Amino acid sequence: MRLIVAGASGRMGRALIRAVAETEGAELAGALERPGSEHLGRDAGELAGAGPLGVAVTDDALPLVAAADGLLDFTAPDATVALAELAAQARIVHVIGTTGFASAHVAAIEAAARHAVVIRSGNMSLGVNLLAALVRQAAKALGPDWDIEILEMHHRAKVDAPSGTALLLGQAAAEGRDVSLAEQSVRVRDGHTGPRAEGAIGFATLRGGSVVGDHTVILAGAGERVELSHRAEDRMIFARGAVKAALWGFRRKPGHYGMADVLGLHEG
Amino acid sequence: MRLIVAGASGRMGRALIRAVAETEGAELAGALERPGSEHLGRDAGELAGAGPLGVAVTDDALPLVAAADGLLDFTAPDATVALAELAAQARIVHVIGTTGFASAHVAAIEAAARHAVVIRSGNMSLGVNLLAALVRQAAKALGPDWDIEILEMHHRAKVDAPSGTALLLGQAAAEGRDVSLAEQSVRVRDGHTGPRAEGAIGFATLRGGSVVGDHTVILAGAGERVELSHRAEDRMIFARGAVKAALWGFRRKPGHYGMADVLGLHEG
Amino acid sequence: MRLIVAGASGRMGRALIRAVAETEGAELAGALERPGSEHLGRDAGELAGAGPLGVAVTDDALPLVAAADGLLDFTAPDATVALAELAAQARIVHVIGTTGFASAHVAAIEAAARHAVVIRSGNMSLGVNLLAALVRQAAKALGPDWDIEILEMHHRAKVDAPSGTALLLGQAAAEGRDVSLAEQSVRVRDGHTGPRAEGAIGFATLRGGSVVGDHTVILAGAGERVELSHRAEDRMIFARGAVKAALWGFRRKPGHYGMADVLGLHEG
Amino acid sequence: MRLIVAGASGRMGRALIRAVAETEGAELAGALERPGSEHLGRDAGELAGAGPLGVAVTDDALPLVAAADGLLDFTAPDATVALAELAAQARIVHVIGTTGFASAHVAAIEAAARHAVVIRSGNMSLGVNLLAALVRQAAKALGPDWDIEILEMHHRAKVDAPSGTALLLGQAAAEGRDVSLAEQSVRVRDGHTGPRAEGAIGFATLRGGSVVGDHTVILAGAGERVELSHRAEDRMIFARGAVKAALWGFRRKPGHYGMADVLGLHEG
Repeated sequence: MRLIVAGASGRMGRALIRAVAETEGAELAGALERPGSEHLGRDAGELAGAGPLGVAVTDDALPLVAAADGLLDFTAPDATVALAELAAQARIVHVIGTTGFASAHVAAIEAAARHAVVIRSGNMSLGVNLLAALVRQAAKALGPDWDIEILEMHHRAKVDAPSGTALLLGQAAAEGRDVSLAEQSVRVRDGHTGPRAEGAIGFATLRGGSVVGDHTVILAGAGERVELSHRAEDRMIFARGAVKAALWGFRRKPGHYGMADVLGLHEG
Repeated sequence: MRLIVAGASGRMGRALIRAVAETEGAELAGALERPGSEHLGRDAGELAGAGPLGVAVTDDALPLVAAADGLLDFTAPDATVALAELAAQARIVHVIGTTGFASAHVAAIEAAARHAVVIRSGNMSLGVNLLAALVRQAAKALGPDWDIEILEMHHRAKVDAPSGTALLLGQAAAEGRDVSLAEQSVRVRDGHTGPRAEGAIGFATLRGGSVVGDHTVILAGAGERVELSHRAEDRMIFARGAVKAALWGFRRKPGHYGMADVLGLHEG
Repeated sequence: MRLIVAGASGRMGRALIRAVAETEGAELAGALERPGSEHLGRDAGELAGAGPLGVAVTDDALPLVAAADGLLDFTAPDATVALAELAAQARIVHVIGTTGFASAHVAAIEAAARHAVVIRSGNMSLGVNLLAALVRQAAKALGPDWDIEILEMHHRAKVDAPSGTALLLGQAAAEGRDVSLAEQSVRVRDGHTGPRAEGAIGFATLRGGSVVGDHTVILAGAGERVELSHRAEDRMIFARGAVKAALWGFRRKPGHYGMADVLGLHEG
Repeated sequence: MRLIVAGASGRMGRALIRAVAETEGAELAGALERPGSEHLGRDAGELAGAGPLGVAVTDDALPLVAAADGLLDFTAPDATVALAELAAQARIVHVIGTTGFASAHVAAIEAAARHAVVIRSGNMSLGVNLLAALVRQAAKALGPDWDIEILEMHHRAKVDAPSGTALLLGQAAAEGRDVSLAEQSVRVRDGHTGPRAEGAIGFATLRGGSVVGDHTVILAGAGERVELSHRAEDRMIFARGAVKAALWGFRRKPGHYGMADVLGLHEG
């Protein structure tokens, strides 16, 4: 499968180039940067630390998209919408890891998904997406007499809490129980808290060192606990997940998909 | 729901009596022991440390079964088969936690399940059964480039390894991957092992202290791990799971069910 | 060693009686309750669920203390001070698990410790006291470029956060680093927190199910983590730790000791 | 401090070069390879991915050692012994991470340590060495009624079990208890094992994915557990620990030291 990487010189773009280079069945077909980038013309593989790949960084998307099978895109909302339109014209796969969309962006992407195979997720790691599916199911199966707690640890430089992934897992738990996360979440405990409210979904945050990202969802019942965890060891997992998503989407029917589809976890 | 406890004076029987006494919607309707037991005639609640319940231990199953809605049975294979026949005649629920059946026993229980609601499991904990379902699904979703390892810890008095529950989880993983556990399991690692075989399902065993039972299934991929764990704090969970199974089976269609059914986790 | 249990009919008193009964080298020499208790005259072993021990509950401390080697006391500050004076007269061991002392109580106990072997701790578990000593040492050895986080989980009925034991562990970490816990502790993280402050000691709290008490201290450096944990499975550990402390104190020089002494962990 | 890296083109040698380059107070003074290496003459910094450092790889150790303050050496036993003799002549620091020594090698290194500052460890991570010291202390404090278990997980390519670090931790536990690890270790459990032997030190091994190295020592008593863990996220920790050891050894008295000395954890 011939893949283009957008935002090729960024941290995530470089990781995507390495992930394409290391994946059997995938081939780097192009590397995009914005006009004026100092990296235009450089070999994309060398830029990414993957050795020369014979693909020069360019700012001209149209011919690349016309000749490729898919596009990996962790850029910014406006750039992503423009690329989605090209992907729709070419009827190729568009893997979107970009975040921060407004509703107009989402509408444009959904329009594009009538002709392109759009796969979009806020976290492309296979493990996290699997975990979210398992949490939804566990929350549904166990009922409200099991207490749900979500714990995360990240490196010392992270500036917000809880992590977006912790909230994604909380949302999965809330959906499993058919409740509103906003109404049930308990994000702070300090001093006299009183007993735990029934149905609460608690969050706890640890920060320190260089931890890439650990998440655990605990379901605690009378006399037993179920703990569902994900440990990210390496940021490459997000790039690898995107490549895996692209391979899954190759020659599939146009539509708007998520990582749960890629993992075969979508509930009928 | 009116419930009988078989093997009332054993460790598990007493736990079942306490679990029935503490569960809303359940009522102790009888307590069985084998002929000659020193406990015949005693109040079952006092025997179990639950306070007097007005139910005397008896060895006469027939009138009890005729007047009850369900039977909780963690006894021995022959006793269970005899009780299954009574349960079938009365068309009641028969929750079976007994283990060690030969194939003739299983055949007899399946025959009884044409008329009784038989719910049978080697581990009645809700959490373990949920975990098995999640493991099956995770193993299926993630594919063979994720390595599966199963870790368990039990108290120092346990005499076999790996635990039955660890094997149950290994079986779930093998089913998820559509492979044979017997062919893929690696139960010992010591000295020069060579690299891990692709597709292996590894087991590791810890023993010590008074641990009731901890199990973790690790799915380890390139750069990330998913860990699915169960911690049993208290042996009462097996009794409570049996009572919950009985309540689920009340007035249900006869058949042979497992805890996955009780949890609503059975895959179509 | 002949031991008296004070507050014999309370939850902790009963656990102490069972712990004495099950410990080799210890023998129940008396069981105290306050005047007017409905349990006076009952067999202490039966009261505690340990079978008859031939020791009746009494409210007359003096003759008991005169004939015993030690006294286990998880009662209330005033009762403890009165018992400390008796223990000093008899020059026996006084194990104090009582909490909530005012400074006048502490002064009276210290006076008594000139003649009695007083062993006092807010948490009698061997494991927690060992953990505190290890945390102090780890915090000292690793230096301030390792971030310290303290995580605890307790059952859903616990009404305050963080737990007293989490604070005790935080205090040990602060002592190891020679900083003030009050100045360094971060007890809440929510929303935009900014990067972690250097030297902070963070706390995170989980609540759910029936968890007796789990504590983990994480020291997170660049590329590696050290995690030091304690899991309480059973409240009996506090009673057993008290009996172990009494045995350690038998015929020792009068003084005011802590569990670190009992464990041989006191730093010179 | 002027440092030489031996085995400069190997995986560990490159990590050492990067660690020297990133550490304040350390400077790369030389890079050694064996005669005939294809890397002779290359810039050591470029070889290591640290950018050019102006130090060419050479096979001529003598002039380098004469002009340097220390030598970082994760090579092979014979090479290490030869370098130890040079380090002794120059009276510099020799940090040895090499493993697999026979007793003749060790004797030669100890002879060299009369004139050189030799710091030798099978694992240069600060965290692991701290953990070993804590394990020794915990094993000593808790006594033989606490069961000791050692669990490790490494990536799928590791070919031996248990890991050297797991054995190092087992040795620390055995020393804490004043027993022989060889006599007490239990390295395999499968099938009917019987109850756990008192005093045993058990090992369990997990393999999978890309795990750099996780180790946990569990001390399990009646009703409670103490768990002491180390998680390596990144192989650079071993290189950084070696540089830290070298800085600690600078201008110190000749002798044979370990990482416990570097950490200030040596018991008097």
